[in-house]
Amino acid sequence: MPDKHAGLCPRFHAAVELIGKRWTGAIVHVLMTGPRRFNEVLAAIPGISDRLLTERLRELEAAKIVRRDVYAGSPVRVVYELTTRGRELEDALEAIGRWAERWLEAPLSA
Amino acid sequence: MPDKHAGLCPRFHAAVELIGKRWTGAIVHVLMTGPRRFNEVLAAIPGISDRLLTERLRELEAAKIVRRDVYAGSPVRVVYELTTRGRELEDALEAIGRWAERWLEAPLSA
Repeated sequence: MPDKHAGLCPRFHAAVELIGKRWTGAIVHVLMTGPRRFNEVLAAIPGISDRLLTERLRELEAAKIVRRDVYAGSPVRVVYELTTRGRELEDALEAIGRWAERWLEAPLSA
Repeated sequence: MPDKHAGLCPRFHAAVELIGKRWTGAIVHVLMTGPRRFNEVLAAIPGISDRLLTERLRELEAAKIVRRDVYAGSPVRVVYELTTRGRELEDALEAIGRWAERWLEAPLSA
């Protein structure tokens, strides 16, 4: 088993680091329901700030998990949506969610 | 969907933070194969230091993911094993692993 997984460790770690940033799971979760505008994502995640959502979306774009689509018009329409790579995160996020729901108590302060 | 998941967010975040610490995934992965002594875990994870393994095992004990069993004798035998909570992490770790294997390239430096 160590042999098979030796090459996976750095990737596993990179994946968890990516998923584990505050709000990233929530953003991906919201985009699982379909493409959304910035303000729609903002409204769907109580507690996140404009600045942090902008930062996280940029990171997710850089990681090719989220794609930013710009539609011409007046005003220009900007929409965020998951790439295939992003949509395929669903299994992992759900498995973590199930475990967390079953085994972890909600911290007093979110 | 936001309603259903509103209470989950802090727990999801806590779970990812726990899993995401460097080496934690590897330690849990090794213990999935059965109870192990400290030196067996150490040998199975190239690159981890004594100090860090001690620290991680203590954190995993505090999180009730790992149990430390001490068997009387001379010398005393100390063995680490996963709790039920720890064994049930398997699905989540495997889902992350599959995604990472499929979508992330191994970083040049581990």
